[in-house]
Amino acid sequence: MEALKEFLFQNDYSYLLNIAIILLATKLLGLFTQKISLPQVVGALAAGIVLGPMLMNVVERNSLITQLAELGVIVLMFSAGLETDILELKKAGLASFIIALFGVIVPLVGGFFLAQFFNTEQDPEMASLFWQNIFIGVVLTATSVSITVETLKELGALNSRAGNAILGAAVIDDILGIIALTVVISLGGKTEGESEKTLGSLLVSNGVAAVFINILAFFIVAIGAAVIYHYAFKKWREHSKINLRRHNIITFAFCLLLSFAAEVFFGVADITGAFVAGLAVSHLKKAEYVEKRFNTLSYMLLSPIFFANIGLAMTIDGLTGKLILFMVMLMLLAVVTKVLGCGLGAKIMKYTTKESLQIGVGMISRGEVALIVANKGSSVGLMSEKFMTPLVIMVVFTTIVTPILLKFVFPKKSSIAQDGKDIEGKIREREQKALEHFTQQVKS
Amino acid sequence: MEALKEFLFQNDYSYLLNIAIILLATKLLGLFTQKISLPQVVGALAAGIVLGPMLMNVVERNSLITQLAELGVIVLMFSAGLETDILELKKAGLASFIIALFGVIVPLVGGFFLAQFFNTEQDPEMASLFWQNIFIGVVLTATSVSITVETLKELGALNSRAGNAILGAAVIDDILGIIALTVVISLGGKTEGESEKTLGSLLVSNGVAAVFINILAFFIVAIGAAVIYHYAFKKWREHSKINLRRHNIITFAFCLLLSFAAEVFFGVADITGAFVAGLAVSHLKKAEYVEKRFNTLSYMLLSPIFFANIGLAMTIDGLTGKLILFMVMLMLLAVVTKVLGCGLGAKIMKYTTKESLQIGVGMISRGEVALIVANKGSSVGLMSEKFMTPLVIMVVFTTIVTPILLKFVFPKKSSIAQDGKDIEGKIREREQKALEHFTQQVKS
Repeated sequence: MEALKEFLFQNDYSYLLNIAIILLATKLLGLFTQKISLPQVVGALAAGIVLGPMLMNVVERNSLITQLAELGVIVLMFSAGLETDILELKKAGLASFIIALFGVIVPLVGGFFLAQFFNTEQDPEMASLFWQNIFIGVVLTATSVSITVETLKELGALNSRAGNAILGAAVIDDILGIIALTVVISLGGKTEGESEKTLGSLLVSNGVAAVFINILAFFIVAIGAAVIYHYAFKKWREHSKINLRRHNIITFAFCLLLSFAAEVFFGVADITGAFVAGLAVSHLKKAEYVEKRFNTLSYMLLSPIFFANIGLAMTIDGLTGKLILFMVMLMLLAVVTKVLGCGLGAKIMKYTTKESLQIGVGMISRGEVALIVANKGSSVGLMSEKFMTPLVIMVVFTTIVTPILLKFVFPKKSSIAQDGKDIEGKIREREQKALEHFTQQVKS
Repeated sequence: MEALKEFLFQNDYSYLLNIAIILLATKLLGLFTQKISLPQVVGALAAGIVLGPMLMNVVERNSLITQLAELGVIVLMFSAGLETDILELKKAGLASFIIALFGVIVPLVGGFFLAQFFNTEQDPEMASLFWQNIFIGVVLTATSVSITVETLKELGALNSRAGNAILGAAVIDDILGIIALTVVISLGGKTEGESEKTLGSLLVSNGVAAVFINILAFFIVAIGAAVIYHYAFKKWREHSKINLRRHNIITFAFCLLLSFAAEVFFGVADITGAFVAGLAVSHLKKAEYVEKRFNTLSYMLLSPIFFANIGLAMTIDGLTGKLILFMVMLMLLAVVTKVLGCGLGAKIMKYTTKESLQIGVGMISRGEVALIVANKGSSVGLMSEKFMTPLVIMVVFTTIVTPILLKFVFPKKSSIAQDGKDIEGKIREREQKALEHFTQQVKS
């Protein structure tokens, strides 16, 4: 058995076999989890667990897998940016902002204090414990509402006051999460005393000041580049009437360059650069075409490798009693902090108690972004590998628990639920109007 | 300058920059060459030359680039298989077969004898000189008629007797070329005395016999797997009415598995496996959907890296006077052997002398496949790196010279040429009919 394994997985062409079985396993397990009403991502993670050291131990995390996974994250974050509805952001208004803000702060603080109890041994190769523990909090901030949206559609409650608040807050949550990630990675990374030649460190000798100069300069440069690319791309697309490959290729290059520049010139996470690059082409008339091609690149090769790679990083070796306790506490904390944080925000903004609870529950689910953040932290020494398993379990848990809890807090309006199609139609109509509105604004 | 280069290209994130500039350079130079009526591939090769050791020396051939390039070849060869019209093969008949056969044998022999003169020093790390020189012949066999088809369309001569013969012969040429490549790589690789645990070497101790057992066994297994996959896929597609991602992902995994199995179990080139996998899904009703998604994966990331990678391998360091002479002779030989070989085949099959010349000229152009073959040979020690430059120049030269020579040997029928659209319509109609015919055959 071991000899067969070596014969198959230790030759020059094993990378072909690795990629093939990652594609097969993530897809087949993804289809299985979909069948039992869980997102396909859960199956893809499970594939990594099955193939990795935890079970079969056939696929290794070699440099090809790691770099393809990193490319996968960049493409995923680009798509997240592309799908971010800047217009929704404007419309969402103060209420959503306050909900999102509390929904970021409470889990961040909660995660930090929980980690303070469990993460007490400083590994000299990693960032300081303080930043490591803050980072656990950052992973807890990311919200993914796709599960919520699907459940609310099913319950016929997407168009309710609470449903609208959730949609608005989710967009803002993404932005706040990215900012938190950016700041913590920049500051946490810096404390390591690495002598990076970033812009900030060339200007001032004070580490913390340098980091803030870097972050500020990055956002100025990146948003500037994004705005320029936005208008250049728009003009280019209007000039060439048909969809051309070059639009996607040049956009991909732009995304990679912004990701590279973020890391190397500003010491900011590459995925932040990718997200801003995605924002640059969002809300363009032909964005859908770009989005589809990026999705193809992602699902055909890169994102299965990314999700499997996270599963590969999971081990039960270090899973002590203490770590299991941490895991259980983390799962509870993930649920409680979002419900409390967002609920509090909603309550402040004069939502009823019931609505506040609904909003809080709707924001529980963490998704891809939490995994992306955890993965990033692990690669820059801000998160110990041993926390990967608890964090992934936490993400999966919130994904499972959200639809169940939603059904408790939302009354099932069967008449509207049956009319689901109509609601979807209305939503699409609203989106269309919003898009037109935006396009006109840009033109005028 | 050097310090800047090091800062940009020697850090952990340089692979992002590498991929970004490969995408940009291949696309921009590709658009330029397209503008001057050359294929975009020429521009993509030029991008590699510009970025590589020959000029700017910024992008390195590291393991990520090499493995992504290899994945790129596999996807390209899969697409070549997918686009191969098995029906055309049947219709093409004896005449096309004889034309293709002579069009493979003459360049193969010609290339071998030319290489015998110029490649006389045995490098102990490489295959024997005999096989190396045969291999130069193999590179010369590959024909790419896309340039010819475009030119003939323009000249309104695609539907002529010569035009039809070229189309038929090109398909058979691909198959013969693949067989020649498979045999030479298997035999040439074997003479190295590598103790591979392939099927053949487990059965018999005689090296040559083992190779032929391998090749035979491979084709039996691969074609068997392809036929099974063909019908399974067909049924699957009929079962699920809409296009689903899983169709592409599972097909990609199948392609990778066949490529892997070819190398590891049978000592046959991985690209042969990919080509057979492509044949498996060709001529299916929904093959177009799979083809498009593979094309996206290819043009968004993998094939630009592959073509640039070939350009990266080109150097002028070893370009001695002798090698330049070889290059010039190779360019002439590439033209002469295809014209003579295919022309002779056509003459035997009772085409007029004028038609035979037209057919010969139509088969001159080498394209992607020649580059893929050269790349493969260089990676398995069958082709010295120093021959990469002459071979690539030869490929580019044949691509440039083919349309020019075609205009000499074909009389310009301006009336039909102006009616080009109509002809294209007819061709499409014929293709459609052929497809329907095939589908019915398969059903009955």
